[in-house]
Amino acid sequence: MIFEPSGRRGYIRHGKTIMEAAQQLGVDLQSVCGGRAICGKCKVKVQEGAFGKALSPIEADEKEFFTKNPGLKGYRLACKARIYGDVVVFVPAVSQTDKLIVAKRAKMRTVEIKPAVRKYYARLSPASLDDSESDWERLQAALNKQYGLIDLKVDYHVLRDLQQVVRQGNWQVTVSVWMNKEVIKVEPGVNEKSFGLAVDVGTTTVAGYLCDLTTGEVVATESKVNPQVIYGEDVMSRITYAMDREDGVRILNETIIEGLNKIINSVALQAGIKYQDILDMVFVGNTCMHHLFLGINTEYLGLNPFVAAVHHSLDVKARDLGINLCCGAYVHLLPTIAGFVGADTVGVLLAEQPYNKKELTLIIDIGTNGELVLGNRERLICSSCATGPAFEGANIRHGTRALPGAIEKIKIDPDSREVLFKVIGKEGWSADLETVEAIGICGSGIIDAIAQMFIAGIIRKDGRFNTNLRTPRLRLNEDGASFVIAWAHETSIGQDIVIYQEDVRAVQLAKGALYAAAKIMMRQLGVKKLDRVVLAGAFGSLINKESAAIIGLFPDCDLDDVYAVGNAAGDGACLALLNSDKRKEAGEAARKVEYMELTVQAGFEREFAKAMYFPHMDDLFPHLKKVLREEDRDKERVSKF
Amino acid sequence: MIFEPSGRRGYIRHGKTIMEAAQQLGVDLQSVCGGRAICGKCKVKVQEGAFGKALSPIEADEKEFFTKNPGLKGYRLACKARIYGDVVVFVPAVSQTDKLIVAKRAKMRTVEIKPAVRKYYARLSPASLDDSESDWERLQAALNKQYGLIDLKVDYHVLRDLQQVVRQGNWQVTVSVWMNKEVIKVEPGVNEKSFGLAVDVGTTTVAGYLCDLTTGEVVATESKVNPQVIYGEDVMSRITYAMDREDGVRILNETIIEGLNKIINSVALQAGIKYQDILDMVFVGNTCMHHLFLGINTEYLGLNPFVAAVHHSLDVKARDLGINLCCGAYVHLLPTIAGFVGADTVGVLLAEQPYNKKELTLIIDIGTNGELVLGNRERLICSSCATGPAFEGANIRHGTRALPGAIEKIKIDPDSREVLFKVIGKEGWSADLETVEAIGICGSGIIDAIAQMFIAGIIRKDGRFNTNLRTPRLRLNEDGASFVIAWAHETSIGQDIVIYQEDVRAVQLAKGALYAAAKIMMRQLGVKKLDRVVLAGAFGSLINKESAAIIGLFPDCDLDDVYAVGNAAGDGACLALLNSDKRKEAGEAARKVEYMELTVQAGFEREFAKAMYFPHMDDLFPHLKKVLREEDRDKERVSKF
Repeated sequence: MIFEPSGRRGYIRHGKTIMEAAQQLGVDLQSVCGGRAICGKCKVKVQEGAFGKALSPIEADEKEFFTKNPGLKGYRLACKARIYGDVVVFVPAVSQTDKLIVAKRAKMRTVEIKPAVRKYYARLSPASLDDSESDWERLQAALNKQYGLIDLKVDYHVLRDLQQVVRQGNWQVTVSVWMNKEVIKVEPGVNEKSFGLAVDVGTTTVAGYLCDLTTGEVVATESKVNPQVIYGEDVMSRITYAMDREDGVRILNETIIEGLNKIINSVALQAGIKYQDILDMVFVGNTCMHHLFLGINTEYLGLNPFVAAVHHSLDVKARDLGINLCCGAYVHLLPTIAGFVGADTVGVLLAEQPYNKKELTLIIDIGTNGELVLGNRERLICSSCATGPAFEGANIRHGTRALPGAIEKIKIDPDSREVLFKVIGKEGWSADLETVEAIGICGSGIIDAIAQMFIAGIIRKDGRFNTNLRTPRLRLNEDGASFVIAWAHETSIGQDIVIYQEDVRAVQLAKGALYAAAKIMMRQLGVKKLDRVVLAGAFGSLINKESAAIIGLFPDCDLDDVYAVGNAAGDGACLALLNSDKRKEAGEAARKVEYMELTVQAGFEREFAKAMYFPHMDDLFPHLKKVLREEDRDKERVSKF
Repeated sequence: MIFEPSGRRGYIRHGKTIMEAAQQLGVDLQSVCGGRAICGKCKVKVQEGAFGKALSPIEADEKEFFTKNPGLKGYRLACKARIYGDVVVFVPAVSQTDKLIVAKRAKMRTVEIKPAVRKYYARLSPASLDDSESDWERLQAALNKQYGLIDLKVDYHVLRDLQQVVRQGNWQVTVSVWMNKEVIKVEPGVNEKSFGLAVDVGTTTVAGYLCDLTTGEVVATESKVNPQVIYGEDVMSRITYAMDREDGVRILNETIIEGLNKIINSVALQAGIKYQDILDMVFVGNTCMHHLFLGINTEYLGLNPFVAAVHHSLDVKARDLGINLCCGAYVHLLPTIAGFVGADTVGVLLAEQPYNKKELTLIIDIGTNGELVLGNRERLICSSCATGPAFEGANIRHGTRALPGAIEKIKIDPDSREVLFKVIGKEGWSADLETVEAIGICGSGIIDAIAQMFIAGIIRKDGRFNTNLRTPRLRLNEDGASFVIAWAHETSIGQDIVIYQEDVRAVQLAKGALYAAAKIMMRQLGVKKLDRVVLAGAFGSLINKESAAIIGLFPDCDLDDVYAVGNAAGDGACLALLNSDKRKEAGEAARKVEYMELTVQAGFEREFAKAMYFPHMDDLFPHLKKVLREEDRDKERVSKF
């Protein structure tokens, strides 16, 4: 058994699946559906051994997948194909998990380094029969004398080996103190290295940022699909799963804990440290993810009046949660605001600080759920709406996370309707490259695609394809129209990368909900005009703000005042990790923001319907006049949707 | 398979031991040596089935036990005898574990009821779309409004089911708050019942007292042999065991945790509650037991300069320790004073409060280790010495814990040398009863026996038997002299209950060490005379203070000022359980007491040698003049020991 391109090889017992072989040989292979031949994320290309006796024959479920996803000649699903002889398989980039992720790398803001966990170096006087004080009292006295620390508590796990550690360090130790309150670790001798982890648990994507707590540097990042997705794509379906099964909450809880432990292992490996060296962790995530992370029953999040169990920030021992960090470490959870506005939004607030600004700012945090904050230092309101994971590259037929090979930028010539695109990991546009090897389209690419297709008249204001066009890229099949972004030869997946009508609809629903929410919130505050718009979320690379404006993700605003900031929730988590004052600030911000329940607002449905159009059914966009003028060529008017 | 007298019966798979059958059928059977045919605590009498094919034949190790312990006709060791047919066995009282223990029942002092955990009844306003505050914030607001509680934390386990509980109680809940700081439990509706557990973990005996935290009443008690005894009889041998094995600390830790959980189950069963209803726990025990309870490495306790890992009191979540209480409950460990003066001594201090008294008090806490405190409100010193478990009824051939049937009081006629005794559970002296059914001698009985044998001239001042006496009770065998306390027909063990020369030696070593320690401490404080003596410990029933004085357990003192107080350490734990102010007081007391290392004191060996005599080689006892005069009849003088 040989895996390419990694070159890993080994003898595999007959009857094992390729997936099991990959795990055994340490080859990274994606698996979202848990071996049910549905997601196709584990597809591999069989190089040798082929379809003879070396692999088990294709059975019904695997056949169904390849029927639904044509053009994958020579591929097998690793979760289904069993090995019965010598075989060489090629793992395409799209099927690998542990690639460098550009999507959620924390874009650090300037912050004073003032972490919750600090290390102190202490010199103790050795014990003797004349001075037989206990080790802990001795250590306390030294910390008091050298650093003025008082009233320290100690995690009892530290006491377990304190005496060996003290003697191993020849009465000199490095002490990690949490919030200047509790000793959570003691190491022999001097060890100044200090690490913390910020995690952003999204409904679809989970990201971890390992920070050096002495320099503030992000030393490793990792993001993965939230392993809970196999139990439901969005928050409501997870809540339903948890309610429907006796042990639903426990399963979802264990799934995310396991997923986070994998991220922890990965960032520790990248940084060359052990997970026990990680002394602190900050958690952000929407309220449902927050509750499931703690193992809190989510039933009431899904029932009117959608009440959370807790809003206040929490400090919980990592070991209580099953999270693998330094044994005495705490996990700090930023506060939540409402049942559907969570700690991730508080992270965004910390990163953007609208509560310190005079300008009226609209912040849109785009995930599988969209959260919006509107206001300034006078008043802040927030709301939430379901968008689906389209902007994270999921639920889009050729969507992908922001892996190398993901199409992140797209240009379409409005005359020829020819397409140029750029993939993550390669410099330059597709036309200029010998090989492109695209694997799919990530969030920022999808927004570009829709915006450019609209400008080029490929799709109309109402989202339907303009079937009158004559270009080989526009296809009309029995299952509707579609547009080819990349030809099979430009990909590494052996088939064309295409935008389907259903993909356009997914984007319309998502952006329509966000736009309508913004309108209702502006009405609530009694404002007509936005001073600033901040676009946050895990789109892949940074979103193209012009494309976002063109599809009508938000009401009109000067593009110079629109900022694409990437994963601001993760940034906020990093800020709270690096500066414990930010945790207090987060609590104040969370209390300041007023929650607005959109579904009970008059006119929301109507606004939603109008906002499904590109960019909107009847709102005007003075700041887009120049770009949209070209769109006027498509004269067709649509009276109703 | 039928067990008598409980009458439990059931089918047992062939080849199982009687011990396994007992466990399967829920019959209480002692086991100290862990099935090695050494302790004989599991002996049972075979009624039917006998020695035919129903039981496996007696093998070498079991045979050896019965050779060493003659007179047990018809008995088998349950740990060795395997079942191969129908059999009825009788479990004698001496082999049962779960009898009512009179030994360590807490003798409660007057104390204001002010427990660390208090229950509050809260009424919440129901959530609605207009008031979608989270449940925890809602509860906090109610507790603040109704009771003025502020800055409350919450155990995250409480959050897990908070919303169901609140709705189950129809927005009315009972909240358990620890130290007015942290919510550790929320129950639906009204539940005023509140329980806490005080435990005293001795080297040989473990006792638990379940208290009603609303009334202060001790509602159930339980004591058991410390299950760690199979790994070593005293503190030093446990420390050695922990050092010699890679996983020694872990094994000792798990053993005591498991033992405590059994005690918890037992007291909960007695009180008709669930262990989850126990909301608080206070731990006392010597420093080694304290460390092993926490899983702290005990290596340095056994190495010069005998330093503890920690002295300060600790609050540790019970679940972190594996202790089965209410999920959010804490265990409070009273502080320790030195490597060999532990939290048990602090418990004694709390109970006796010598720091509040003007009189010079000597407190002797007698266990497998003896701890002494001397002083008054001006100054207090303490020390520790090894005594062995003789006074707990262990290490004495016919010693026993304070079970029903244990001989607790003994009188010997100085002329006839005839013996009267009293057993626990029966009114009146042996001579007046039709059946006595003694099982052995507990601590208070042993002190009586030695004192009375000395007064009656059966043993001399130096501890040797007076072999000139003519009485059938005095026996001279190849293994030395011995004296019969109870004849076989007065017992339920089928053999005479006897005091051997080695038993007298064990008492001499124990009392000599305590007396010498007291002398050295008096010298340290520069005092010649004691105002008060307090005798604490788990002797069985209360020690006879005159007997204690006669054997020379302590220097001369007016018997009116000698107090036998039973298990004061356990009482102190109860006080700290019922009144959290006592925890602060304990910390102050522990800091006030000065530790004195006896082994480095000049003259200790000499004092020890002189104190081995009854009552002492040359000290005078003006307060014992009347009793000791009788002893003058035995004119023999001993020039050297």
